[in-house]
Amino acid sequence: MLEKIDLSKTIDKREYKDKIKEQSERLGELQRKLKDANIPVSIVFEGMGASGKGTQINHLIQALDPRGFDVYANDKSSKEERMRPFLWRFWTKLPAQGRIALFDRSWYRQVTMERFDGKIEACAIEGAYKDIQSFERQLTDDGMVIIKLFLYISKKEQKDRFQKLESSKSTSWRVSLDDWRRNKEYDRFLGICEEMLENTDMDYAPWTIIEATDKDYAAVKIMTHVADRLEEAYHLRLIRGERKEKEVPIRTKEYQNGVLSGVDLTKTLTKEEYKREIDVLQERLDELHSQIYLLKIPVVLGFEGWDAAGKGGAIRRLTSHLDPRGYKVYPTSAPNDLERVHHYLWRFWNHMPKSGHIAIFDRTWYGRVLVERVEGFCSENQWKQAYQEINEMENHIGNAGAVVLKFWIHIDKDEQERRFKARQENPQKQWKITEEDWRNREKWDEYEEAVNEMLVRTSTTYAPWIVVEGNCKYYARVKILKTVVEALEAKIKESKKNP
Amino acid sequence: MLEKIDLSKTIDKREYKDKIKEQSERLGELQRKLKDANIPVSIVFEGMGASGKGTQINHLIQALDPRGFDVYANDKSSKEERMRPFLWRFWTKLPAQGRIALFDRSWYRQVTMERFDGKIEACAIEGAYKDIQSFERQLTDDGMVIIKLFLYISKKEQKDRFQKLESSKSTSWRVSLDDWRRNKEYDRFLGICEEMLENTDMDYAPWTIIEATDKDYAAVKIMTHVADRLEEAYHLRLIRGERKEKEVPIRTKEYQNGVLSGVDLTKTLTKEEYKREIDVLQERLDELHSQIYLLKIPVVLGFEGWDAAGKGGAIRRLTSHLDPRGYKVYPTSAPNDLERVHHYLWRFWNHMPKSGHIAIFDRTWYGRVLVERVEGFCSENQWKQAYQEINEMENHIGNAGAVVLKFWIHIDKDEQERRFKARQENPQKQWKITEEDWRNREKWDEYEEAVNEMLVRTSTTYAPWIVVEGNCKYYARVKILKTVVEALEAKIKESKKNP
Repeated sequence: MLEKIDLSKTIDKREYKDKIKEQSERLGELQRKLKDANIPVSIVFEGMGASGKGTQINHLIQALDPRGFDVYANDKSSKEERMRPFLWRFWTKLPAQGRIALFDRSWYRQVTMERFDGKIEACAIEGAYKDIQSFERQLTDDGMVIIKLFLYISKKEQKDRFQKLESSKSTSWRVSLDDWRRNKEYDRFLGICEEMLENTDMDYAPWTIIEATDKDYAAVKIMTHVADRLEEAYHLRLIRGERKEKEVPIRTKEYQNGVLSGVDLTKTLTKEEYKREIDVLQERLDELHSQIYLLKIPVVLGFEGWDAAGKGGAIRRLTSHLDPRGYKVYPTSAPNDLERVHHYLWRFWNHMPKSGHIAIFDRTWYGRVLVERVEGFCSENQWKQAYQEINEMENHIGNAGAVVLKFWIHIDKDEQERRFKARQENPQKQWKITEEDWRNREKWDEYEEAVNEMLVRTSTTYAPWIVVEGNCKYYARVKILKTVVEALEAKIKESKKNP
Repeated sequence: MLEKIDLSKTIDKREYKDKIKEQSERLGELQRKLKDANIPVSIVFEGMGASGKGTQINHLIQALDPRGFDVYANDKSSKEERMRPFLWRFWTKLPAQGRIALFDRSWYRQVTMERFDGKIEACAIEGAYKDIQSFERQLTDDGMVIIKLFLYISKKEQKDRFQKLESSKSTSWRVSLDDWRRNKEYDRFLGICEEMLENTDMDYAPWTIIEATDKDYAAVKIMTHVADRLEEAYHLRLIRGERKEKEVPIRTKEYQNGVLSGVDLTKTLTKEEYKREIDVLQERLDELHSQIYLLKIPVVLGFEGWDAAGKGGAIRRLTSHLDPRGYKVYPTSAPNDLERVHHYLWRFWNHMPKSGHIAIFDRTWYGRVLVERVEGFCSENQWKQAYQEINEMENHIGNAGAVVLKFWIHIDKDEQERRFKARQENPQKQWKITEEDWRNREKWDEYEEAVNEMLVRTSTTYAPWIVVEGNCKYYARVKILKTVVEALEAKIKESKKNP
């Protein structure tokens, strides 16, 4: 594919000036339009070393209003970044609605430079492509425009540029040994890039090759292409009114009598049994906390359940003996301003724990298929898409070595009523109960259907759901602690075997 | 001072349980009250190694609603952090209004552990105390409650605890060689801590010594003390209605005829002169950009000026030849949700460049003494306080090695009118001009007075103001570029002399 590209293309100075002026004005206007239409844009610059990515990015941003874009240079990952799942550093940088992010190198590092360097195992390449594909699919489904540019120069041109850079004292530091290695083995690197282009040229996020021998030619092609893509996105949005929606599959009623109806809520523990067990488990968890820190294992624990099911109390028992430097509780409430203008998973990505740390989510990303579904805060398509999106996220995190557990704390409707009333009568706890809690209760059946579907469709080997019988708080707390302890023990054992 | 402390204090189990319950309830309620009153709280845990900071923090947070606090462990600074001014890592973590931040070690590292390790020069200690004092004063002036706890144990107790930790496989990694060094030289470390306590025990942010031999005693004392301080802060806010305000000094009219009236706006350059000079300067700046990157010099450039004075155009000429990975333009508009609930300098601290990088601010923190002053968006006290606060911030950044330059681009009222009208007639530029621009124009005299006062009170050796004659855009752009080039050359020369 790449060998067919004509790298001798040029443009004369006069035509260049006219086109740049024309496209700059077009880009400025389109940026304002896309801002008003709340469309986020990601522009990826990949390509050969010394192909002029920096220069071209600077060209492009001269045409843009600096209030609306960010440039991210993705060098080798930092220590902080390496302690997290691979996609974390990119998720956290994604543009908000109406903004543009420019990536100088990107999530393609792994399948280009790092693959060339032998830093990723051959068997992991397919998985990396799959991660990239679902990442880009999730974002474009959410309305983002992704523009991917590959800047291409020949082996000889690259060599000349490296030599020129090296000849000046003020630029010689820009050329590294790695750069020369990729030039020496140009054909091997090119082959890797070709495979990457073939595997990730999706209709929702296509690649465009930029012939970059003549910098002026490249600048005009990039600006024109970016403007064309933005214009197209704007018109699509205008025509469809709202953002593009997929076809809606027919909704079934199969989840009305599901998992929850079979849960045995009579399970109990006496106070004495509880005290004996909980003490042992808490101390054991504290020991395991040290071990996962030393073994650099990240842990993600999600808590969902009916209002007043006892999530807060269970989390408190879980954390009471832990070192606060090694865990963090993230309560999830309605999204704030900044969260609202990002993909719904963005705020959770921001909180993914680094290796050796525990993140506990009090309510989670499952809000998409629970409250957002039932209350109509997102469209039917959006929550239907979410099962796969969530599985993909958890799979990615699990592949990065994390323990991922999700707890649904279950109580019945009568028990909830008893607890609501007890809270109302206790002055210390009155603030915990609101009108909304009573309103949510009226939609119990709809929520139950949503929970049943969620449990079936998102309980996976890499991130299982644990349904916790919650009518007896003692029983629930012990079961949760025991499950966490056992999962950590298993992971630690596995991790010692295959370090 | 510390030797007078009785470290043998204890509490019996029964009393402990009652008190913890009582204080926990109090804390939970106070947290909700302070949230409603929008009061931010920072709690600092400092003290001896193995004095139980982690355990005590975990105790305290068990009493708090996890939706309202964050815990920050401040280990040795990361590479990212070391590339920025010392206070950056703390500014960026400050709690929003109504939230609580708990710091496990803090901005006191520098004047305790790092001083002990000889990592800070003796002559820099006084400066570090001064920075800490103004940091805490700025925050408390802005309504924050700062609670500082020093956990104290004896040399023998510390040794026993280290030995106990080392005796177990799962905890031995917690004791480092540095810990043992501080135990061996306990008296020297204690002396350093005493001096720190004496120098930073301010009425607005006092220290409390916690006798930490008996963990239960310490827990009760900490919880009671924190609750007392929160209650006091809440009552002060209730009584005064609004946040505490300082006395207002009498306002003078001395700045009505100030710096601006003496600016010679007839200075011009022809198009030919401009083209010749700007090309040379832009190339030179690109070379210098490489050098400051290699020498790790951070650069902060602030742009202020009348509407339509040409800030955007000047910034564009400044950046057009630069590598986009090494500079960033931050346009400042009205604060967003998150910015509004923090100190007004917080959002600028977030954007302070790392070493070797250039941050360009299109409008700056001077909004406090310009638009916020003139439009009444802050109180008279607040903008009057701001001159010193801003000088302190710029001084801190300058001391960290940064070049800090601030440009006021000046035009006269007639020139502004010409430009406004030209914008209105040009369809490409109509979006740039709004009703608000015309309204601001009516307050020209008030703004002029504010600018004059700002120029006099915040032009310093470490962060000078440059007034740019802006009626001729060519002249203005060249002057700005030339000033930046000369300042970088001077800094580079100095930096090579004293690396």
